[in-house]
Amino acid sequence: MTQFSLPPWLQTVHHDGSAPYVSELYPRLGDTVRIRLRTGLETPLRRAYIRTAPDGEQVFTALEPGPADPSARWWQTEIAVNQPVVQYRFILEADDGVWFYTAAGPCAHLPLDATDFRILADYEAPEWVKTAVFYQIFPDRFYNGNPATDPHEDEYELMGHRPKTYSWGQPSPGGFASVVSFYGGDLPGITEKLDYLQDLGINTLYLNPIFTSYSNHKYDVTDYEHVDPHLGGDAALITLRQELDKRGMRYMLDIVPNHCGVWHPWFQAACNDPAAPESEFFTFHDHPVDYESWLGHKALPKLNYRSRELRRRIYNGHDSVFRRWLRPPFAADGWRVDVANMLGRQGEIQVGHKVARGIRRAVKETRRDAYLMAESFFDSSPQLQGNEWDGMMNYAGFTLPLWHWLRGFDQGAIGIGWHVKSDGPWPTAALAASWQQHLAAVPWAVALQQYNLLDSHDVPRIRTTVGGHDALHRLAAVVQFAFPGLPGVYYGDEIGMADEEGFRSRGCMIWDESQWDHDLLAFYRRLIQLRKESSVLQTGGFQILAVEADTLVFQRMGENGRILVAAHRGEKARPARPLPVAHGGIPDGCRFVEYFSGAELVVAKGHLPLPPLVQGAALWQMVGGS
Amino acid sequence: MTQFSLPPWLQTVHHDGSAPYVSELYPRLGDTVRIRLRTGLETPLRRAYIRTAPDGEQVFTALEPGPADPSARWWQTEIAVNQPVVQYRFILEADDGVWFYTAAGPCAHLPLDATDFRILADYEAPEWVKTAVFYQIFPDRFYNGNPATDPHEDEYELMGHRPKTYSWGQPSPGGFASVVSFYGGDLPGITEKLDYLQDLGINTLYLNPIFTSYSNHKYDVTDYEHVDPHLGGDAALITLRQELDKRGMRYMLDIVPNHCGVWHPWFQAACNDPAAPESEFFTFHDHPVDYESWLGHKALPKLNYRSRELRRRIYNGHDSVFRRWLRPPFAADGWRVDVANMLGRQGEIQVGHKVARGIRRAVKETRRDAYLMAESFFDSSPQLQGNEWDGMMNYAGFTLPLWHWLRGFDQGAIGIGWHVKSDGPWPTAALAASWQQHLAAVPWAVALQQYNLLDSHDVPRIRTTVGGHDALHRLAAVVQFAFPGLPGVYYGDEIGMADEEGFRSRGCMIWDESQWDHDLLAFYRRLIQLRKESSVLQTGGFQILAVEADTLVFQRMGENGRILVAAHRGEKARPARPLPVAHGGIPDGCRFVEYFSGAELVVAKGHLPLPPLVQGAALWQMVGGS
Repeated sequence: MTQFSLPPWLQTVHHDGSAPYVSELYPRLGDTVRIRLRTGLETPLRRAYIRTAPDGEQVFTALEPGPADPSARWWQTEIAVNQPVVQYRFILEADDGVWFYTAAGPCAHLPLDATDFRILADYEAPEWVKTAVFYQIFPDRFYNGNPATDPHEDEYELMGHRPKTYSWGQPSPGGFASVVSFYGGDLPGITEKLDYLQDLGINTLYLNPIFTSYSNHKYDVTDYEHVDPHLGGDAALITLRQELDKRGMRYMLDIVPNHCGVWHPWFQAACNDPAAPESEFFTFHDHPVDYESWLGHKALPKLNYRSRELRRRIYNGHDSVFRRWLRPPFAADGWRVDVANMLGRQGEIQVGHKVARGIRRAVKETRRDAYLMAESFFDSSPQLQGNEWDGMMNYAGFTLPLWHWLRGFDQGAIGIGWHVKSDGPWPTAALAASWQQHLAAVPWAVALQQYNLLDSHDVPRIRTTVGGHDALHRLAAVVQFAFPGLPGVYYGDEIGMADEEGFRSRGCMIWDESQWDHDLLAFYRRLIQLRKESSVLQTGGFQILAVEADTLVFQRMGENGRILVAAHRGEKARPARPLPVAHGGIPDGCRFVEYFSGAELVVAKGHLPLPPLVQGAALWQMVGGS
Repeated sequence: MTQFSLPPWLQTVHHDGSAPYVSELYPRLGDTVRIRLRTGLETPLRRAYIRTAPDGEQVFTALEPGPADPSARWWQTEIAVNQPVVQYRFILEADDGVWFYTAAGPCAHLPLDATDFRILADYEAPEWVKTAVFYQIFPDRFYNGNPATDPHEDEYELMGHRPKTYSWGQPSPGGFASVVSFYGGDLPGITEKLDYLQDLGINTLYLNPIFTSYSNHKYDVTDYEHVDPHLGGDAALITLRQELDKRGMRYMLDIVPNHCGVWHPWFQAACNDPAAPESEFFTFHDHPVDYESWLGHKALPKLNYRSRELRRRIYNGHDSVFRRWLRPPFAADGWRVDVANMLGRQGEIQVGHKVARGIRRAVKETRRDAYLMAESFFDSSPQLQGNEWDGMMNYAGFTLPLWHWLRGFDQGAIGIGWHVKSDGPWPTAALAASWQQHLAAVPWAVALQQYNLLDSHDVPRIRTTVGGHDALHRLAAVVQFAFPGLPGVYYGDEIGMADEEGFRSRGCMIWDESQWDHDLLAFYRRLIQLRKESSVLQTGGFQILAVEADTLVFQRMGENGRILVAAHRGEKARPARPLPVAHGGIPDGCRFVEYFSGAELVVAKGHLPLPPLVQGAALWQMVGGS
């Protein structure tokens, strides 16, 4: 087939949802917003239109060509925010044809609505997350603040195994027994280590589940209404909350509304009596021995959201689980919803969207600025349109593409048993396209709230993913902190922890400072500091500037600055070579300083005179005017 | 930026929802279906997986490599149809990387779910449409069967104008007066001309609105429950139904549930009394003078579907409009829903999906095999997922790309006032990508039900669109009849009618046979015949084989044959040049006969030895074995 290439000038066209391009990130229904489009100075563009579709009917509005600045021409017009989600794209009439420009980029063909840019009306956004840097803690493995509450063998039995507490970091048995192997980490332990976290710059904790349950991961809840006594009980959470308040810090809880543990009283009641009100919370195929469970794990019976009473108890009711923990004295600042991709879905019953909307309503009614984040490893854009989740654990739109780029495509990390791998490196173009398309699939206001992670309790630590290479670990961290969305650090990554035999990524936090990678820790401290200070990183626009064999360069740009990130994965350095940046609207004379090294560069003749790039990521901050 | 190209062998990978690839087009929930993937004989493919996501969680199933046939290798496995919509894609692990193959084609990056292939469970399909060839009639302009019922001036007044009936084909005034200019066409006229239509091969009529209204287009309904007396009233429709039955023919009605006419009793009641039950059917900004209307046309007040009573009268209730006309004695075989893109949508009220689902439920409950088709000029894929419309007037996914390819991009035809045009021809790649992406956005079972048209009462006739060029008109018709979906001929296109001054595309049907293009009529007759006989065209798969500067070649393939269509738009012939077809799984020795000319060709060394292609479309039917 004939290859078809878009004309190069289309690379100079840019729009995203950030401030120079959309005048108001959170408009109200009925408002008017100014929309701007940036193009290069020399283009064959005759006229530009914005295409909206109020109530489904196409409307074109001509953009007015504005005055050129030294590096770009700006086109602008106003559009009405006349429905809850305003979708739009650009139509470019040029000497060389008519082109479309959507959130997925420029194209020649008629695009689908799915790639339109999107503005949300009357959207309730948790403003505080913009400056949040999250730190994820798996409580049993962080710090043992009160050994008196450590689980011991005579307390209970789970699937034939009894709990046992091991010495910090010492090996414990594998198999199912590992689920009841404890190390005594608890909420008092976290409270005790807040100085450490604050010193690192962390301002928001994400706690893996802390409700009463028999396992160490606590996704098998037996009581949604109390903190597990082994973690210190409700009182310890109240204390943690108070100590966080003193430091101006926040925290997010983790909940699994998809299933509960077999010892949850609801499930026990349902098993004991088919006529119990809780029977409809579950799906029995053969009562009581065969029932719907999470991926067939019988320890985790699936909750059936066709039950109105279940919906009431979990989120709709005034005292529902989702609401109660957001209120004082616990006053959690947000929720992370486990297995959100499967929630409310079981074969012919597909009420996932309804349940998510209901949870959102309950959460935002209770606390307008709560952050509602959910877990999925996959494309979740249909649930990220402003009326369900505020953001997702952004494996699909950020993490997986980055992993694949750093070590070749490898399905193994998240797919249990499917070892689909590429021999060679993943194309940089695949990274760029994956990021761009996933960004395009959600409104910009939501993209800024995605939880961008390098790893978690469910996947290998980044240190392990990159084969222990410090430079690649740092590359990943820079990219994470500079990508649109919210950075979340998994405990211990900042000191260089890798996966450990028997623990996988859930090793005991190392408190022996002689084992720390202090350079890395200082590096993380600087990154965290930058992220909290830089409005460019918090809300700036995003444009990929260069896709080379082993190098990706992208730009964040805000009203008060810009940052370029040049990520180079190759073991061999990228030789010094000027990088074209005119298509990024970056004017000649623009001066950049590398954040870590302090090196300076000045743009000339549309190029940034890049020095050799060694393996890692350079972060160039513009200094002075725009 | 570095150009990135997919390896050429990926062009040999093919799957669509047709019979060789999916064992059951209409599976039941709980069924298992066999999925097959075709690849070339020489590929670096090691392993192939199908990726499904039951209840949102990713599952890989390995495909088994099957025996090679002379031209292709087939991989296959079975998957469970375990939810209402089963989405799937393929993961290809090869020596040169890991690749994805989705309904949008092969790619290197992580695809969004939106491009997955889709299978519908328990889907109610109107089987009869597979062999349907539609013929759209604008009743006032087709044939005057009973002059006694022609509208005349003393009957009523509409926005200051009185109706008048003109002599067949004679000019009438422009401006709003044209809306009440009549030519006397009516249902008895259609009945009288059934012999003509049957001789042409037509088996299904699509009638523009016939319910009582004051205009000639009848989208300003004043009574949803009766046929306009000027068209012959209810009795004439019953007679038409009976005559259709005698011929084994069917018909589809046109309804506009989005708005009604100002003289509809509901609107009159609402205007006269704000407390009337019908007041809630409308949205008054300032009662009774200012109200929501269709695109600001005050003659067409918008219906507000937040009203339960309105929903009851239009579709939910036992005697609702949507239900009554499907029952005897009228027994319509389907509905065409006007302005479906705007239905149930007005600013903050966005209940379009709910209304469409409700209409579907009512229609299918009343008549399981009714065809429910809807109008939109734009991407409507969110309403084509099996639970809303059976198909759309496929402007976005078929017609517009074809128009743009034939005469350059031109927004003018459907966008009133936006004359966005390209100077040069639209790239063939844009045609191919537009078609492929719109096909990819809907389940295959739905793609087969799309209403593919070249024109309608709302847009220029195809003859006019192609500047009067007979060869391009025929090209368009061949492509229309060979594209996945259902062909619909607009009355008069078959005899070469073009737009007329004062009538636009709504000219009076020419019955003076001396004015007919008899060659074109014979050509249409042959196309219609082929379409009704050919299961390949009705349900066969679709693969684009060649994209050249002025030529597009695609394949339809079924279990009992294949058809190649080579469309060439250039005024200069495409010189004789062998066309590579091995990537279409077409074996050497395969013999093709051109449908119109009878010319024969035999595939050799992976190529079809194409003769010179003149402007137009050649249609090559495989003869003998596969």
